[in-house]
Amino acid sequence: MELPKTETLLLEHADGLLRITLNRPESRNAMSLAMVEELRAVLAAARRAPEVRVLALRGAGGHFCAGGDIKDMASARATGGEAYQRLNRAFGRLLEEAQAQPQVVIAVLEGAVLGGGFGLACVSDIALAAESAQFGLPETSLGILPAQIAPFVVKRVGLTQARRLALTAARFDGTEALRLGLVHFTEADDAALDARLAATLDQVRRCAPGANARTKALLLATEERELGPLLDDAAAWFAEAVTSAEGTEGTLAFVQKRKPTWAQ
Amino acid sequence: MELPKTETLLLEHADGLLRITLNRPESRNAMSLAMVEELRAVLAAARRAPEVRVLALRGAGGHFCAGGDIKDMASARATGGEAYQRLNRAFGRLLEEAQAQPQVVIAVLEGAVLGGGFGLACVSDIALAAESAQFGLPETSLGILPAQIAPFVVKRVGLTQARRLALTAARFDGTEALRLGLVHFTEADDAALDARLAATLDQVRRCAPGANARTKALLLATEERELGPLLDDAAAWFAEAVTSAEGTEGTLAFVQKRKPTWAQ
Amino acid sequence: MELPKTETLLLEHADGLLRITLNRPESRNAMSLAMVEELRAVLAAARRAPEVRVLALRGAGGHFCAGGDIKDMASARATGGEAYQRLNRAFGRLLEEAQAQPQVVIAVLEGAVLGGGFGLACVSDIALAAESAQFGLPETSLGILPAQIAPFVVKRVGLTQARRLALTAARFDGTEALRLGLVHFTEADDAALDARLAATLDQVRRCAPGANARTKALLLATEERELGPLLDDAAAWFAEAVTSAEGTEGTLAFVQKRKPTWAQ
Repeated sequence: MELPKTETLLLEHADGLLRITLNRPESRNAMSLAMVEELRAVLAAARRAPEVRVLALRGAGGHFCAGGDIKDMASARATGGEAYQRLNRAFGRLLEEAQAQPQVVIAVLEGAVLGGGFGLACVSDIALAAESAQFGLPETSLGILPAQIAPFVVKRVGLTQARRLALTAARFDGTEALRLGLVHFTEADDAALDARLAATLDQVRRCAPGANARTKALLLATEERELGPLLDDAAAWFAEAVTSAEGTEGTLAFVQKRKPTWAQ
Repeated sequence: MELPKTETLLLEHADGLLRITLNRPESRNAMSLAMVEELRAVLAAARRAPEVRVLALRGAGGHFCAGGDIKDMASARATGGEAYQRLNRAFGRLLEEAQAQPQVVIAVLEGAVLGGGFGLACVSDIALAAESAQFGLPETSLGILPAQIAPFVVKRVGLTQARRLALTAARFDGTEALRLGLVHFTEADDAALDARLAATLDQVRRCAPGANARTKALLLATEERELGPLLDDAAAWFAEAVTSAEGTEGTLAFVQKRKPTWAQ
Repeated sequence: MELPKTETLLLEHADGLLRITLNRPESRNAMSLAMVEELRAVLAAARRAPEVRVLALRGAGGHFCAGGDIKDMASARATGGEAYQRLNRAFGRLLEEAQAQPQVVIAVLEGAVLGGGFGLACVSDIALAAESAQFGLPETSLGILPAQIAPFVVKRVGLTQARRLALTAARFDGTEALRLGLVHFTEADDAALDARLAATLDQVRRCAPGANARTKALLLATEERELGPLLDDAAAWFAEAVTSAEGTEGTLAFVQKRKPTWAQ
């Protein structure tokens, strides 16, 4: 695949896995406008690259992402309210696009997972956290709003937990993140986190890429569309999948008690 | 009540309880088209039988249901894509109808609870699982889709858990199913599972059948309708219920410190 | 602020905290029509009083609220079905208004938290429970419906748990309420409950009142509105917040490493 040049991200692509590392460790990978636009460009490139099956999102230097970038905020202040609005909405578009990404998106969460970083965690398909990670939505304690993030937090952990977290700006660790259903696994140290990531990648690779992309779209559509018409469409997609190259290979491999091509 | 004749199901009706046993143990109760149609016929008959208060769904031979039937799939392949689509949608209709069933539906989950069996578990009102039960959505690992099932999984455990389960085809046991909120109780062995079923039936019998049916419809409507108009309708249903025979008996029995007729 | 005169509620306002105590201990604070109307009047008064930042709702005499008042029910019976309908809908309006209250609403739950009391708990932003509290939806066991309550239970704990609770009238304690996600904290005794309330109030006070009100409205809107247009509006609200007095003070205080004015 052709990857865009990036200054705030490290990119590494091999064996269908695209590793994206937020790389502004001097500011705990604070989400600058440049980083937002680079992430959107990388997601767009991956969207056109069917050989990419998984995106793994992580932060450099022991932190995932500490939230919005204060320098961008300052320069927006100079320009006025409209600049803030555009800056904010651009981050929301990143969240919408990451949520809809056809590939499986895995987030590896260490250190600060705050504000915008918390929002990114909420659109991952699978979230792995260090026990020591620090999660929180500090916005209201700064007099501002988790504006683009809040809706994704509600979708992620439900209204009941989201309202307490957003209205108290509480900090919590990876163990609590697991209890709240924000992440899927919590691990005690780096080695365990790496092992969990490897095991998760193995699991994802057992699943057919096309079937996974269609299934993900179906899961997301469930929250937007009426059930009956969605099930009608889903039956058509099922028929397409069974008669596709993937469906043919998958059921044949099952009968022949061997791994399908995509799992090798 | 008049029960349809069935070849894939064992039916037993006594004291307001209809026990439905999926009975194809040689294929771990795989969901054949015949079984889908028989289940739909039984649900329809129960819908017209107010003397039935509870449906208890279980599998013969130590498994609940291992998913779709491979023979049906093979014969659909011979016929072409449309046959798959009809087969798949018919199973979805079963899930829609079971979800909307006016009676309380209890699922007793042992052994394999995979694919279509997982879907059935998701539309029960109360789910009891053996610790050793094996849950999973293997579809994408076969190159196909949990097409009719996925929306019910999202409604059951939320998007966050559903996306991991569907996109990794992960297997998990009854203890994990309890943690994910897929089931309400997990028990260590058969005796404990039977005891939990008996206790659950006792609880349900304390509740008035008509009030339960209306309440269930109200709960399900919450996810489809706007809140204000739904609460308006609910107030009318409340007035109907209070002035009905059930409401009169229930409040009288409460004042007289005795069990209402339906709980005896 | 000017508070309405109340006979069923004790009110105490100091330092931005309005304590509302349900005060009919002789009936375990059963929700009479008078209490519903007084609560609605108090919420309306608080809505117009920006100096109120938090509402703390509690019951007198060791119980939160045992549900609807039987005397009101009896007098409605004399009047006929329409009186029931009005009585019921009025309680639903209270729940809708409490849910939308711009201030942070904290519920302190002890003793009986049944029926209408359960409903009130479901619209709090933060719920603290005694381990020994008794939760339940007894309506269907009385032949009636949790009509206005059921939709708020689904929003609070999800359909999966709500259907079991409503269709079995099961009782459960504070520990289980925490596991089900109905409350945010459970405490072993009165002292621990008071300490948790104090800690929670401290957390809320660190957050700017205007930012919290807007964030709460945004969280609630997430469940009603389409994502894209909501995020567009949220970006405008973000720009407003950043450039407001609160946003200016909050970001300045952050840079100056001091507490913002609202947190002092």
